[in-house]
Amino acid sequence: MTNIILTSELTVKPIKVEASDNDVIQAMLVSTLGEIDDLEATQGRINFLMKNRHGTPFEHTYFKFYIAAPIFVFREFHRHRIGWSYNEESGRYKQLDPKFYVPDSDREVVQIGKPGAYEYVPGNDLQRTSVRRALEMSYQVSYEYYEMMLSKDIAKEVARMCLPVAIYSSMYATCNARSLMAFLSLRQRHDEEALFPSKPMKEINIVADKMEEAFKTAMPMTHGAFVRNRYVAP
Amino acid sequence: MTNIILTSELTVKPIKVEASDNDVIQAMLVSTLGEIDDLEATQGRINFLMKNRHGTPFEHTYFKFYIAAPIFVFREFHRHRIGWSYNEESGRYKQLDPKFYVPDSDREVVQIGKPGAYEYVPGNDLQRTSVRRALEMSYQVSYEYYEMMLSKDIAKEVARMCLPVAIYSSMYATCNARSLMAFLSLRQRHDEEALFPSKPMKEINIVADKMEEAFKTAMPMTHGAFVRNRYVAP
Amino acid sequence: MTNIILTSELTVKPIKVEASDNDVIQAMLVSTLGEIDDLEATQGRINFLMKNRHGTPFEHTYFKFYIAAPIFVFREFHRHRIGWSYNEESGRYKQLDPKFYVPDSDREVVQIGKPGAYEYVPGNDLQRTSVRRALEMSYQVSYEYYEMMLSKDIAKEVARMCLPVAIYSSMYATCNARSLMAFLSLRQRHDEEALFPSKPMKEINIVADKMEEAFKTAMPMTHGAFVRNRYVAP
Amino acid sequence: MTNIILTSELTVKPIKVEASDNDVIQAMLVSTLGEIDDLEATQGRINFLMKNRHGTPFEHTYFKFYIAAPIFVFREFHRHRIGWSYNEESGRYKQLDPKFYVPDSDREVVQIGKPGAYEYVPGNDLQRTSVRRALEMSYQVSYEYYEMMLSKDIAKEVARMCLPVAIYSSMYATCNARSLMAFLSLRQRHDEEALFPSKPMKEINIVADKMEEAFKTAMPMTHGAFVRNRYVAP
Repeated sequence: MTNIILTSELTVKPIKVEASDNDVIQAMLVSTLGEIDDLEATQGRINFLMKNRHGTPFEHTYFKFYIAAPIFVFREFHRHRIGWSYNEESGRYKQLDPKFYVPDSDREVVQIGKPGAYEYVPGNDLQRTSVRRALEMSYQVSYEYYEMMLSKDIAKEVARMCLPVAIYSSMYATCNARSLMAFLSLRQRHDEEALFPSKPMKEINIVADKMEEAFKTAMPMTHGAFVRNRYVAP
Repeated sequence: MTNIILTSELTVKPIKVEASDNDVIQAMLVSTLGEIDDLEATQGRINFLMKNRHGTPFEHTYFKFYIAAPIFVFREFHRHRIGWSYNEESGRYKQLDPKFYVPDSDREVVQIGKPGAYEYVPGNDLQRTSVRRALEMSYQVSYEYYEMMLSKDIAKEVARMCLPVAIYSSMYATCNARSLMAFLSLRQRHDEEALFPSKPMKEINIVADKMEEAFKTAMPMTHGAFVRNRYVAP
Repeated sequence: MTNIILTSELTVKPIKVEASDNDVIQAMLVSTLGEIDDLEATQGRINFLMKNRHGTPFEHTYFKFYIAAPIFVFREFHRHRIGWSYNEESGRYKQLDPKFYVPDSDREVVQIGKPGAYEYVPGNDLQRTSVRRALEMSYQVSYEYYEMMLSKDIAKEVARMCLPVAIYSSMYATCNARSLMAFLSLRQRHDEEALFPSKPMKEINIVADKMEEAFKTAMPMTHGAFVRNRYVAP
Repeated sequence: MTNIILTSELTVKPIKVEASDNDVIQAMLVSTLGEIDDLEATQGRINFLMKNRHGTPFEHTYFKFYIAAPIFVFREFHRHRIGWSYNEESGRYKQLDPKFYVPDSDREVVQIGKPGAYEYVPGNDLQRTSVRRALEMSYQVSYEYYEMMLSKDIAKEVARMCLPVAIYSSMYATCNARSLMAFLSLRQRHDEEALFPSKPMKEINIVADKMEEAFKTAMPMTHGAFVRNRYVAP
């Protein structure tokens, strides 16, 4: 019997970043080079672009991330089509590791209210214990049937059908600053601060927060303008 | 105890199709209108575009499908980013039905050979029985834990973490003839006939075959040229 | 000597439209079907999607336009990459007609202020006469050199190098309601009404206004929600 | 009277390149990591991906170019929508320089044959002289009317209407190795060598050749596999 691994860890590693605030200015000024003296300084220019939703100058940048997260997070991630490239681990070609996501103590597990306006609350002890126990048992059973099938030479792509959406996968995800901001604007929760608040699932929100760190480090002025303009992606 | 439904059915319904061979010609001729007498007839023109990979005239068309299939099929489907629009049932907002995919008697369940060059064979009786039994048991257990959690008011998005990738989902998928051909070229298996043979998973291949039917019906000459040019998407 | 045609006409013909407010609802409800009783009626639902920037349900729609406009309009048009398909008349394959754009009496021809904050004013009579006369003379000379080269069997793609960006071209442009709203949000001018005002060139604004008519006719509730939400594309 | 500049120069400068063959391998192996011993070495793997048209591993790369070319080249360039970002000099915001493209002595100026199957030949001395003279005269006249209008405070976006498509513009263009190969496969001419020969205009072919140099330098094995697989973009 395989020991399955239960974890709440969501991994985001910036593998390569080739992006700076100057990339934005460079792209912007090609449009208007003859009159740069009339424009304000770098921060002002970036803010102008952000505020007026001139998005293209932000595209000439490059972020490559390694991400490890459960499949249900990747399912949402892959709905971001434009300005995103993905290569993900495949259950058709390799045996998936027995590593599964469980909510940690910060993760609300109870949902109240109506669709489109759900609120999430922590849940009581009994509920939290039930979740943990039910998920663990279900994961364990699924993985054992998976291994049993593999031991009988069943094709990986068939055996994995019983594996849950909480099993971990990994991928490389590459984007630019514009497509990253579009992702952040939908996958982070900024209630009051955001002009268009979104209600992402907590797990993809955590992934988004980690990606935002890399963005902020590489492009502090662009990030600042994004925040100041209330997380509206240009 | 809920009775789960086991099925091998993969549903593809063309909901709206607004596409004809004439759409291709119309788009093509805007480029060259002054000299149409020098061009050959419709079939020849479409074949010319296909052979020379002039893809844009095929884009001015519209296919909307309703598709019901297991999540592992949708995972592959959603990697097609360009010229595709999707809206899928969400396990965050509704309780998912207890309907799961199992291979039918035509589905090979054993894989031999090396990655990148797998072959699939039917498997012996024992193997086939094992697959069926293991999947059914695993699905049943997963769904019971799911329902148990829901009965304790656990959030749908949390409870569903234990559900397997073989559970059914449904979506609307909209594309044009060019993005459809790109999909077909990668998700159908045409061994000898295809110039660039691909090795899709059987389940998405079945979905692709059903979509091809709608394509062939709406645009018979375009489909014919696609086949004649060995399934190379323009 | 060829008589050139001077015109201010910008043509937009909806060729095929397969789009309705119901397409949006259908795509939306696949996500949440189990709980539709909790949601409000159609108009409310569309407004909810628009307000919360849930864009994908608007994509399952189809608009094909025929557009005739000068090249400088198409240059801006073709920068809209996502959810747009184009086939345009080609100066490589046919002789271009001697038809050129000139500003009509409503078109401001004088620009004041700084880059990023230009204002346009009508100009005085002398200025307006100068524009008309200069453009006409320049077009006439360019087209005569073009014809002279063609008469010497010079390749069309070489001879056309001298033709101005105001010469007319034509294209088919196909989009969906989401990509159309993205276009409108950037290419229409709605000063006070728009949450993010843009400053499009007048000629593409006129084209956008005509496309908006087809949008409003096919999808009145979606259009209404777009206006109510201050022209922010979802 | 302004002295206009006539040139045949087409400038392509790689500004930033963050791309290597190893990026491809890294993205590929995330799919199959458990079994890398069964795969061949790097060159073999890249060739496998190229031959089987597995395109996504090539996307995790970054090329930013500065390009200076006439507008008629950019018109074709901007039809490449996917995996490409552009920011171009704008005739709305700055006065365009009096720099115009003319064919050099290597550029065939006469076209024979039918649409779809044109051949280009050098042309005789008279023809070549006529082209040069006609273009120069036409450019000169156009630019003088342009300057005359600017001198009367006519808006730049109006005055530029008379400028020819051969006037120079500049842009930043950013892509990845996959979108670059798609561009090269359509915009280079490789008659016998290419599996799907294309017939690009000579000027964009020259631009493409210069971009190919940067590609070859950064990713020699990927470039080699592209050539070996007869310029079929994966």
